[in-house]
Amino acid sequence: MQNEQPLIKRLARSGLAYMKKIVKIGLVQMACSKDADANLKKAVAGIEDCASRGAQIICLPELFLNPYFCQGPKDDHYFDLAEKIPGPTTDALAKLAQKTKTVILCPLFEKTAAGKFFNSIAVLNTDGKFLGTYRKMHIPSLPPDFYAEDYYFEKGEEGFKVFDTAYAKIGPMICYDQWFPEGARIAAAKGAQILFYPTAIGWPVNQSQEKSSAEHEAWQITQRSHGIDNNVFVCAANRVGREGDLKFWGTSFVSDPYGRVLAKASIDHEENLVVACDLSLIDEMRKEWPFLEERRIKLA
Amino acid sequence: MQNEQPLIKRLARSGLAYMKKIVKIGLVQMACSKDADANLKKAVAGIEDCASRGAQIICLPELFLNPYFCQGPKDDHYFDLAEKIPGPTTDALAKLAQKTKTVILCPLFEKTAAGKFFNSIAVLNTDGKFLGTYRKMHIPSLPPDFYAEDYYFEKGEEGFKVFDTAYAKIGPMICYDQWFPEGARIAAAKGAQILFYPTAIGWPVNQSQEKSSAEHEAWQITQRSHGIDNNVFVCAANRVGREGDLKFWGTSFVSDPYGRVLAKASIDHEENLVVACDLSLIDEMRKEWPFLEERRIKLA
Repeated sequence: MQNEQPLIKRLARSGLAYMKKIVKIGLVQMACSKDADANLKKAVAGIEDCASRGAQIICLPELFLNPYFCQGPKDDHYFDLAEKIPGPTTDALAKLAQKTKTVILCPLFEKTAAGKFFNSIAVLNTDGKFLGTYRKMHIPSLPPDFYAEDYYFEKGEEGFKVFDTAYAKIGPMICYDQWFPEGARIAAAKGAQILFYPTAIGWPVNQSQEKSSAEHEAWQITQRSHGIDNNVFVCAANRVGREGDLKFWGTSFVSDPYGRVLAKASIDHEENLVVACDLSLIDEMRKEWPFLEERRIKLA
Repeated sequence: MQNEQPLIKRLARSGLAYMKKIVKIGLVQMACSKDADANLKKAVAGIEDCASRGAQIICLPELFLNPYFCQGPKDDHYFDLAEKIPGPTTDALAKLAQKTKTVILCPLFEKTAAGKFFNSIAVLNTDGKFLGTYRKMHIPSLPPDFYAEDYYFEKGEEGFKVFDTAYAKIGPMICYDQWFPEGARIAAAKGAQILFYPTAIGWPVNQSQEKSSAEHEAWQITQRSHGIDNNVFVCAANRVGREGDLKFWGTSFVSDPYGRVLAKASIDHEENLVVACDLSLIDEMRKEWPFLEERRIKLA
């Protein structure tokens, strides 16, 4: 039994060559204000800029339409910010996806018809078609209330998802999900080639430099490792700028299946990253490091 | 339900202070020859050196008693290298553990009474008591036969384990296990404070510098991430030196729960690392990043 070669190894040993398959990712790193119209306008400009530079799959930061309201005093007025998916924002961005022939990952504060609230991503395909929604599975409630998301969002109950877009199979997750290897594993096992983590993470302004540095580095290491352990690409799109007592740390990046950072944004400026990813590296790497195949599923 | 605070957060918010709890780790990075007696002698010297410098838990590299025979032509004579656990080597090292008051992780090619062969670690406590064996769960069979371990070892069937030693709860795994976040997750969930990965990993001598560099970095990133995602310390003890067509890359290291590398050995010299770890950082970090508690177990 142990000497049976799984398919990918037989292919590798047969000498089958893989063709390059380049997909260009766009990440919009932006500051978000209380003015939803201004945030949407900025996001649209970011998407158009990425598309003009060849980006095919474009991701906005978590809850890009709103300030990060999960810090500070809890306030029920924030529930008014939620909207339906599909709804006005996805309608607007679906037209843009069609016009620019891009796939757009649109993170939104979602209110369902049943009156439930989620921290979600809508995925829009190049033909403007709404492919579905991922609802954030891991909801932080971190002391001292910088990320009190459990007050505003229910935990997603639909699991980790993969969307078969025009350019690649993608696994969208959101911010706090990035600390949990389970999500990355499941999305990759379902076929995701690229994981996306729209994010709103930063430093409490009064935190020590030592701790801030440790958190910042750990955030990159853990996401890069999900790429390595699953032989996939990883993209994080974060916001920048200070809101209340949080300074969002930007550092949006794309890493490859070896965890190599292909491009990384600044910690404090708005910018749009456009990064070419060769998806054939996924299968190339799996010839030698077929981690997904060699999991001990029954015992893990 | 979502607003119920788990125990560690209630403790954190109660202002309970954690005391420092320092444990000193010793890692023996060594080259291994065909002379088992010489390898054992070198390992004993390494353990004595670590102990004299205050190390309390000491780890040897994978299969330290033997050359790394899993590369090149398959040869049944190598099965003669296997031994029982407990057996002559653990008997010798148990006396040393007692003498030096150290915990010793002793990786061995194990032959069971039933005639099965495993890639294992014996854990010896400070009183010389044999605490048990971990048998490598993930067995590589990587082309082009640099790591054809599936010919020599059966896959461990007892799962991931935690041993409650005199100084800490430890989760021993072995080499290829380090690419699988499941093992780290399970060991940490069972209470492991420190994960140990004795290793025999290196570069094929004819491999490109670019690929070698990518593998070397990925190997560190993925292990550091297991520490981050589980709020634990991680230790890797690798061999050095060239054997056949493999150049083992050393780089034994200890990282903390933020994934910070506390100490790292060279890529090409034998050396013994002794590293102080403050285990109280585990609970400190879990106040803010309680990843183990917030897993979505039913959906992951």
